[in-house]
Amino acid sequence: MADEVILLDFWPSMFGMRTRIALEEKNIKFDYREQDLFNKDSFLLEMNPVHKKIPVLIHNGKPVLESLIQIEYIDEVWPGQNPLLPSDPYQRAQAKFWGDFIDKKVYGPTRLIWGAKGEEQEKGKTLESELGDKIYFGGKTFGYVDIALIGFYSWFEAYEKFGSFSIEAECPKLIAWAKRCVKRESVAKSLPDSEKVTKFAPELKKKLGIE
Amino acid sequence: MADEVILLDFWPSMFGMRTRIALEEKNIKFDYREQDLFNKDSFLLEMNPVHKKIPVLIHNGKPVLESLIQIEYIDEVWPGQNPLLPSDPYQRAQAKFWGDFIDKKVYGPTRLIWGAKGEEQEKGKTLESELGDKIYFGGKTFGYVDIALIGFYSWFEAYEKFGSFSIEAECPKLIAWAKRCVKRESVAKSLPDSEKVTKFAPELKKKLGIE
Repeated sequence: MADEVILLDFWPSMFGMRTRIALEEKNIKFDYREQDLFNKDSFLLEMNPVHKKIPVLIHNGKPVLESLIQIEYIDEVWPGQNPLLPSDPYQRAQAKFWGDFIDKKVYGPTRLIWGAKGEEQEKGKTLESELGDKIYFGGKTFGYVDIALIGFYSWFEAYEKFGSFSIEAECPKLIAWAKRCVKRESVAKSLPDSEKVTKFAPELKKKLGIE
Repeated sequence: MADEVILLDFWPSMFGMRTRIALEEKNIKFDYREQDLFNKDSFLLEMNPVHKKIPVLIHNGKPVLESLIQIEYIDEVWPGQNPLLPSDPYQRAQAKFWGDFIDKKVYGPTRLIWGAKGEEQEKGKTLESELGDKIYFGGKTFGYVDIALIGFYSWFEAYEKFGSFSIEAECPKLIAWAKRCVKRESVAKSLPDSEKVTKFAPELKKKLGIE
């Protein structure tokens, strides 16, 4: 029996982008189902009753939740092509540390404040220094940490326009890394147009009640 | 060469307790080094320059950070005895989901507010329902989710005394589970006395500037 893979997602979601990229890296066909987060349907609520959030990866009827956990799951279930996590336990732990850092320090706060300049730049510098002169965060191959962070890039323009956010000048390596990543087919297919995100941003702010 | 394992920790830390328990489950001897979090020493800052927090697990000179990641690391490096995570990818993803839930919804907010009654009870009920009639969260064997949550139990008395927190009546299964867990040698060795925690709680609140 062929695998049935469904992704409940919302196009501008940086979390959803992670799961899309991981599936593309493994060349897995999936049924993408766009969700209306302001009017959640009963299938989403049934699949993620605790958090009621996207992305939800449904593999042969069973829901896998949380985007970083989904990346690991995808890597474990389809290990053959393009390993996403290193096999060495210490390097795996390092990759997970940076994934966790991105979730706690980069995605979370930024979503709330849309760019408090000093703080964001500090985090950008921490990531810039971790990247160093490597091609990707894990070294020579694109993987877990790259997937965890790259969705952010589609929001850069929106942050610059609506927040006080600008990291290009201070984090040239990070920008060069992002430009390398978006050339990859899996990323190009999974990230929305920056322009589309920037048009959508004021609409989202309004819906969330942020002025 | 024998493994050199050092744990930088702080005795009342629910996060540190996780790593202690995981090491005990694997029967790993480790050098426990108590840290003064209000006067951090240079070794801690060197080992965890990004977050500057405990617990830090140092294995043959290399730091592994974040308690849930440490449990996974310990399980991967010493797989022989007492597996902590299931081998099935879907069950692994489920375990990690609950670990993440505990971090985001149980530990985080509680530490800040010390028990806003309604909200805490709702989370207790979610965990109670996930536990159901199982012996441990993973079924018949003690593992990752049990380790992620049990440290909380040493703080119950303190929360009841200083917060408006009481879950015993509403979550009898959870309490029975906790009583089963603390009978385990690894847990008994790793959790501080509730009484000691309760005495320490007002001191901590004062240091954190919470009245």
